[in-house]
Amino acid sequence: MDIVSTARAHGGTQGVYRHASAATGTDMTFAVFVPDHAPGATLPVVWYLSGLTCTHANVMDKGEYRRACADLGLILVAPDTSPRGEDVADDPAGAYDFGLGAGFYVDATEAPYAAHYRMWSYVTDELPALIGSAFPADMARQSIMGHSMGGHGALTIGLTFPERFRAVSAFAPIVAPSQVPWGEKALGGYMGQDRAAWRRHDAVALIEDGARVPALLVDQGDADQFLREQLRPELLADACAAAGIGLTLRMQGGYDHSYFFVSTFMADQLGWHAARLR
Amino acid sequence: MDIVSTARAHGGTQGVYRHASAATGTDMTFAVFVPDHAPGATLPVVWYLSGLTCTHANVMDKGEYRRACADLGLILVAPDTSPRGEDVADDPAGAYDFGLGAGFYVDATEAPYAAHYRMWSYVTDELPALIGSAFPADMARQSIMGHSMGGHGALTIGLTFPERFRAVSAFAPIVAPSQVPWGEKALGGYMGQDRAAWRRHDAVALIEDGARVPALLVDQGDADQFLREQLRPELLADACAAAGIGLTLRMQGGYDHSYFFVSTFMADQLGWHAARLR
Repeated sequence: MDIVSTARAHGGTQGVYRHASAATGTDMTFAVFVPDHAPGATLPVVWYLSGLTCTHANVMDKGEYRRACADLGLILVAPDTSPRGEDVADDPAGAYDFGLGAGFYVDATEAPYAAHYRMWSYVTDELPALIGSAFPADMARQSIMGHSMGGHGALTIGLTFPERFRAVSAFAPIVAPSQVPWGEKALGGYMGQDRAAWRRHDAVALIEDGARVPALLVDQGDADQFLREQLRPELLADACAAAGIGLTLRMQGGYDHSYFFVSTFMADQLGWHAARLR
Repeated sequence: MDIVSTARAHGGTQGVYRHASAATGTDMTFAVFVPDHAPGATLPVVWYLSGLTCTHANVMDKGEYRRACADLGLILVAPDTSPRGEDVADDPAGAYDFGLGAGFYVDATEAPYAAHYRMWSYVTDELPALIGSAFPADMARQSIMGHSMGGHGALTIGLTFPERFRAVSAFAPIVAPSQVPWGEKALGGYMGQDRAAWRRHDAVALIEDGARVPALLVDQGDADQFLREQLRPELLADACAAAGIGLTLRMQGGYDHSYFFVSTFMADQLGWHAARLR
C-alpha cells in the first residue's frame, strides 16, 4: 500500500492510499480518515460508498464528515466507485452511468466487464482485510453508508452481511435497481439479462427474499431530480413495512441530489451510526 | 445579475451568481450562502477572499462554513480571485502565482494588466453595492476573512476600511507581500517597481504607516510548506506588537496550507466573527 497523501484535519489524519488490487486487477485508490486516538487503541469503522461519477475524493472534499468523525471517534473509509486504468473497459458511448465511475458494487460476469469490474469482492472482502491490517480499526464494530449508487451499495452490502454491519444508512439511495433505468442498464450490462441474478444486488428484492438489517436510516431530498424515476424510496418503505424492518425515512424539504444535501445531514447520520457502534 | 445555481444546504441557500462587472470589464462569478431568516430580516455579512488558483468554488466545496453560518445567522460571500475571459492577460509563462486566479486584490496600473485586473475596486466597491441591493444583507455589520493570498486581501482591506469591517481574520495569510517572492512578483507585475506604491497593499507596511483594525485573528499551520518563505506570520506579529494591535496568532500543530486546514478552523473563526457582529 502506497501513501498518496496525508493531511492533518479536524484533529485527525485524512489520508489517500493506493494499492494493487487482486480483486479488480488494477491499482485502486481510497481515502481514510483516522481521528487522533490513544496508542494501541482501535476505533469503529464507517464505510462510505460514493455515487455515479465519483472517486474517493468527492466525499473527502465535500462530505463534511471529519469534524463529526473526530468528535465521535470513527474511522471513515471511502473507496473508489470502479476499477480504472487504460485496459479497463468503459461504457461504449462514454456515458456517466456505466463503466468508469459506475461500478455499482457488483462482480461483473459479462465480457468485457468481468475482467476488472469486481467491486463487490473489492469492497466486501479485499479492502476490509487491508483496512483491518493497516489501520487502527476495530473490525468487530463496522457500519456502512452511501450516496445514490453508493446508497445502493450500502443497502445491498448491509443486507448481505447483517452480522458485520451494525447499522446501514444512505443519502438518496437507489433502492430497487431492477425497477429503474440506471439499475437495469448497470445490472444488465455487468451481469446479463437473467433478472434472477440481479436480486442479490437489489435492496428491495433482498428484503423480499428475507434479508434483514439491524438498523436502517435514509435521508432523501424532495427536490432531488432523480427522485421519481431512479430512486423511488417508496419501494424501500413498502418492502420494509411488509418485512417488519424499522426503516427511518426522512424526506428533507427542498434538498437536491448533490453534496450540498449529503454534507447537511452527514453529521447527523454519523451520530446515529456512532450510537449503534458503541 | 444571473443566477448560475442555487441549492438548499444546512438550512439555508448556497447560490452562485454571475454579473457583468464595470470594475473588471468582464463577467464575474461569486458565491453567497444565505441562512434561512425571517421575512424582511437582514443578516450580517462575512467576506471570504480565496487564495492563489482558486475561484469562488473552492471554499464553497471544501470550506465547511455553511453549518456555522446557519447556526450563527451569517451571510458568507466568496468572490473570484481575478478577472477571467479570453481577452484577460495571464502570466506570460502561465504560472499559478500571477494573472488568472491570482489577482492579489489590487487595481493594476501596469499594461496589459490594468485593463481588467481591478480586484480592489471590485471587492471593496462594486460587489458590496450588489450584495447590499440583491441580498438580505445588513451592510452596517460586515467582517472579512481570507486564505493565503485571500488572507492578504482580508488584512489589507480590513486595515483600509476599519469603520466598515468589525473584525478581520485569516488562514495562513501573506502578511508582507513586499518582502516575499509571491508578493514581489505580483505587486511588481501589477503596479510596477515603485515600492512606495506597494505599501497600501502590504498589511505590515499599512500597520507601520498607522492603519489599525478593531479585531485581528490569524490561524497558521506549522507544517505549511509556504510558512517560512512566503507567509512569515512573525512579521505581522512584530508589526502588531509595535503598533499595539491585539493580534491573536494561533500556530496550529501539524496543519498544512490546504483546505483540510481551513475547514478545520472555519467554524471557530466564524464564531469569533459572529461575536463581533452582534
